[in-house]
Amino acid sequence: MIRYPFITAAEDAADAAGAVIRPLFRSALLVEAKGDASPVTRADKEAEEVIRALIAERFPDHGVIGEEHGADRPDAEWVWVVDPIDGTRAFVTGRPLFGSLIGLLHHGVPVLGIIDQPVTGERWVGVQGRRTRFRAPLGGDAGCRPCAVVAEAELSCTSPDMFTPADRPGFERLRGAARRVTWGGDCYSYGLMALGLVDIVAECTMKIWDWAALVPIVEGAGGRVTGWNGETLTAESDGRILAVGDPALLEEAVRLLTDR
Amino acid sequence: MIRYPFITAAEDAADAAGAVIRPLFRSALLVEAKGDASPVTRADKEAEEVIRALIAERFPDHGVIGEEHGADRPDAEWVWVVDPIDGTRAFVTGRPLFGSLIGLLHHGVPVLGIIDQPVTGERWVGVQGRRTRFRAPLGGDAGCRPCAVVAEAELSCTSPDMFTPADRPGFERLRGAARRVTWGGDCYSYGLMALGLVDIVAECTMKIWDWAALVPIVEGAGGRVTGWNGETLTAESDGRILAVGDPALLEEAVRLLTDR
Repeated sequence: MIRYPFITAAEDAADAAGAVIRPLFRSALLVEAKGDASPVTRADKEAEEVIRALIAERFPDHGVIGEEHGADRPDAEWVWVVDPIDGTRAFVTGRPLFGSLIGLLHHGVPVLGIIDQPVTGERWVGVQGRRTRFRAPLGGDAGCRPCAVVAEAELSCTSPDMFTPADRPGFERLRGAARRVTWGGDCYSYGLMALGLVDIVAECTMKIWDWAALVPIVEGAGGRVTGWNGETLTAESDGRILAVGDPALLEEAVRLLTDR
Repeated sequence: MIRYPFITAAEDAADAAGAVIRPLFRSALLVEAKGDASPVTRADKEAEEVIRALIAERFPDHGVIGEEHGADRPDAEWVWVVDPIDGTRAFVTGRPLFGSLIGLLHHGVPVLGIIDQPVTGERWVGVQGRRTRFRAPLGGDAGCRPCAVVAEAELSCTSPDMFTPADRPGFERLRGAARRVTWGGDCYSYGLMALGLVDIVAECTMKIWDWAALVPIVEGAGGRVTGWNGETLTAESDGRILAVGDPALLEEAVRLLTDR
């Protein structure tokens, strides 16, 4: 169902975005901007433009949803969902843990996803029904690891500040039960899950461009990505994301997050 | 005062530690260990042994203090202070943001420091009285940036869980005043400060092997590393570390941390 030209286009789009983003990483422009978001916003916009141009040229009937430039044909059969710089804080402070996210929805279901780290050269490619591939200049092999109980799980979360007061108790229950929590990471944490190094990620306020690409990557490595109630993610999801490397973790993690 | 053979030895020790650590990064052994600390502890111990052997051979009258193997001749004129894997959680979860720390004290004062990231190949070398050097396969230039007020500062901290109840209010005041906080990073955050990408790091429960190497690196890039009261760090320091890229930040940061 997922045609090779789609996969090739996604990889070419990641290459094109990386070429825009890489020169700005740790650049004098960013150092001088000192927390001002404008250089990173510019890189984000420009990278999204090159991705959109590539998709429009190859698949003029496909839709595109992006963080910076909005939605074109969001009701098309095939819709690309892109976030060229996921992990703005990591990017701005020079950490090579941000990523370019490129996802493809078929009738609303994520069927193809790329996490590209343009500085280290790492790239995860997930395609529905296939094993996730990982380009690994720093080492690592694709494949989630077995971990059936939360008490043994490595939990990861980008920031303790992302939770609303309503969501915090659920996260704190999960965190209290997990073996350990590591902070930071954005999309990179889901990539580490697909390498068998992280067992649970629970986050909030995630837009569709933050999670669409992650689903085929984690699931193609053997894991699951759902909402906090364990439900399948859709465009209408509430932005609360739960990813587990071992599907056996799902029920216990949902119970902790929702206290049911 | 800092002789070249000391700098060469520090770099050789970092190379030797990296050769021990690198094969374990994201290895099947770590994936299988699933949160069990033993593989990382073994890497930590073995890397410390190769560093100690190298120092003992070249400078038999020098002291060495390390996290894993304790203190030899801690009252010597020259004492090496080493932590082969600073950032255990980052290492265990596959993030290339941990570092090997090698510091040298002269009469208790840190005069030489290395942060080595053996996976990316990044290395910071700080020597008292000289400009910090940075080996930059991922980009970046050594040198802190100007940032005179906390309201404009990028704050970084490894984990919100590192603060004691007594220290939390001070950190929360600083965090509330800063432009933004990024979580995670360990020694790498101080390296990013020395590249002009992070302006303040405030942390707690830091042992001498966690901070000794950082002082010459940050200060050789134009910043300052002190205690939370702005005091010079010594072996008797209370483990509360404040680093600022622009020395003009120090007074305001100390005032916020200590509420004076």
